[in-house]
Amino acid sequence: MTTGPRIAVPAGGVGAARFLRGLRIAAPDAQITVIGNTADDITLFGLRVCPDLDTVMYTLGGGIAEDQGWGRADESFHVAEELAVYGAGPDWFTLGDRDLATHVIRTQMLSAGYPLSAVTAALCERWSPGVSLLPMSDDRVETHVVIEDAGAPGGQRAVHFQEYWVRLHARPRAIDVVPVGVEDAKPGPGVLEAIATADVVLLPPSNPVVSIGTILAVPGIRAALTDTAAPVIGVSPIVGGAPVRGMADRLLEAIGVESTAAAVARHYGPELLDGWLVDERDGGLVDDVAALGIACRAVPLMMSDPQAAAQMARAAMDLAGAGRPA
Amino acid sequence: MTTGPRIAVPAGGVGAARFLRGLRIAAPDAQITVIGNTADDITLFGLRVCPDLDTVMYTLGGGIAEDQGWGRADESFHVAEELAVYGAGPDWFTLGDRDLATHVIRTQMLSAGYPLSAVTAALCERWSPGVSLLPMSDDRVETHVVIEDAGAPGGQRAVHFQEYWVRLHARPRAIDVVPVGVEDAKPGPGVLEAIATADVVLLPPSNPVVSIGTILAVPGIRAALTDTAAPVIGVSPIVGGAPVRGMADRLLEAIGVESTAAAVARHYGPELLDGWLVDERDGGLVDDVAALGIACRAVPLMMSDPQAAAQMARAAMDLAGAGRPA
Repeated sequence: MTTGPRIAVPAGGVGAARFLRGLRIAAPDAQITVIGNTADDITLFGLRVCPDLDTVMYTLGGGIAEDQGWGRADESFHVAEELAVYGAGPDWFTLGDRDLATHVIRTQMLSAGYPLSAVTAALCERWSPGVSLLPMSDDRVETHVVIEDAGAPGGQRAVHFQEYWVRLHARPRAIDVVPVGVEDAKPGPGVLEAIATADVVLLPPSNPVVSIGTILAVPGIRAALTDTAAPVIGVSPIVGGAPVRGMADRLLEAIGVESTAAAVARHYGPELLDGWLVDERDGGLVDDVAALGIACRAVPLMMSDPQAAAQMARAAMDLAGAGRPA
Repeated sequence: MTTGPRIAVPAGGVGAARFLRGLRIAAPDAQITVIGNTADDITLFGLRVCPDLDTVMYTLGGGIAEDQGWGRADESFHVAEELAVYGAGPDWFTLGDRDLATHVIRTQMLSAGYPLSAVTAALCERWSPGVSLLPMSDDRVETHVVIEDAGAPGGQRAVHFQEYWVRLHARPRAIDVVPVGVEDAKPGPGVLEAIATADVVLLPPSNPVVSIGTILAVPGIRAALTDTAAPVIGVSPIVGGAPVRGMADRLLEAIGVESTAAAVARHYGPELLDGWLVDERDGGLVDDVAALGIACRAVPLMMSDPQAAAQMARAAMDLAGAGRPA
């Protein structure tokens, strides 16, 4: 029986996956439960695609396209090429052949009536990610982004998050972010228990709006995080006033939050956060965050390789007071 | 406006596709309507696969894996490799990546409520096969083969035709062939009209039991063929007492028909057949067939290349009395 700490990690995609890989190095005996964002999920060509769950699964299972951060290593795109020749859309979301097998199995199992949590567990049997990967919810939630569009009635329209990000490259101004269906979503099996019984909760450097934000929006999850006895330690996804990766700045603007490490800590708030890691470059913000009642330290936050990510995870565990000497 | 003959062709897979390619060469101005067997269709990994329709479509559209006779040229198998690593079955029916795109589009359209005939027409827009390709029915019919199995209750069990053929290599003795669902199937849109208005009906050298046989079993199609004013000319799939390709002999045995070109003609019968082409090697059977009241000629029946297939098609058209000088 393992005696390591129980760590719960609400997680988005690439940043979370790399942080988790570091956490597994930093805390090899920990029992890690990942609560994966599913609001980026999308149905393409009749296949259910769960980008964040898959990015975590592939990264921890050793199948990720390393440089890219998402998708499978040694990937080919013959199915997508053929779909394009058929003129089948959308053509802006490229599905790799190996990746597609995951979606085919997922879709078949969902069609057969299995909940996403059971499907994810079945897929993880192959990948052995070394963590328990739980969807935030078995209910369908899809983040839509309301964007400016001069040609649309009222000058705006809503698009799926993937269309905003992958197709439109986050270029149109985002006016609002709406996790469609979230108010009726129930936390997935094991999610609330993982938070309630955790020794530590870590928020990896994921997008505060569409990754962590949608997880928190599932009724019951925010309350579980504010109620848990475990310290909740976050890692800023904003470094030097800009996201390390992705378009968090554009979406933070949409919800009226400044793109600074301190503003994101304030957005989460001291009810939720017990500690917050900012990058060394943001050392000047440590006192501002501490003034909110959130313990704060400045450490290197660049996950240039798994060892750097492990060092970040160690810093987070240290801040939680639950760190074990390396 | 084309003035060529209207030719209706009930068709199975590889043999029919190669014959049709020859027919297009032999009768370039003909309006060819192919009535495709759909009883070999199967759902794999949640995807609807229509092997015979696709073999005709790919062959006439220039996308077939030529040596193999089915599947796509320049094919890869990365999705299938991944499905196997996941342990997802069945593993005996290999789906190529490029081929899979066809099934993904088909499945998505069927799920959206389009009938198979509309789906097939949409897929053919890409391939431009030069024929009108109609499924024999929009209703689901699946051929099951009852096989000997000493381990099963009663010593027999039923398997899908694809399992009998692809997985079991037609080795178990076939006791019966059952096109499940055929009694409730309606002919697909345009099928009866194509037969009724045809100038010639040609039966390519397809399997008399599971290809032509299932098409004939759709209520209304056999009657349309016996009632049409057009001559119905068949090409024997049995040469020298054995099928040119496939397992027709094993299935003919199951339905009590000898594996000779004459016995297959007798099985179809003079009500259906006006003419029958046998191979030169079966010249000794011409009089037997003629004695049934079916015009018969012996010609080369090996489709070694498209020109040889064209020569066969010319012979069939000649026998129909509708042949045009090459």
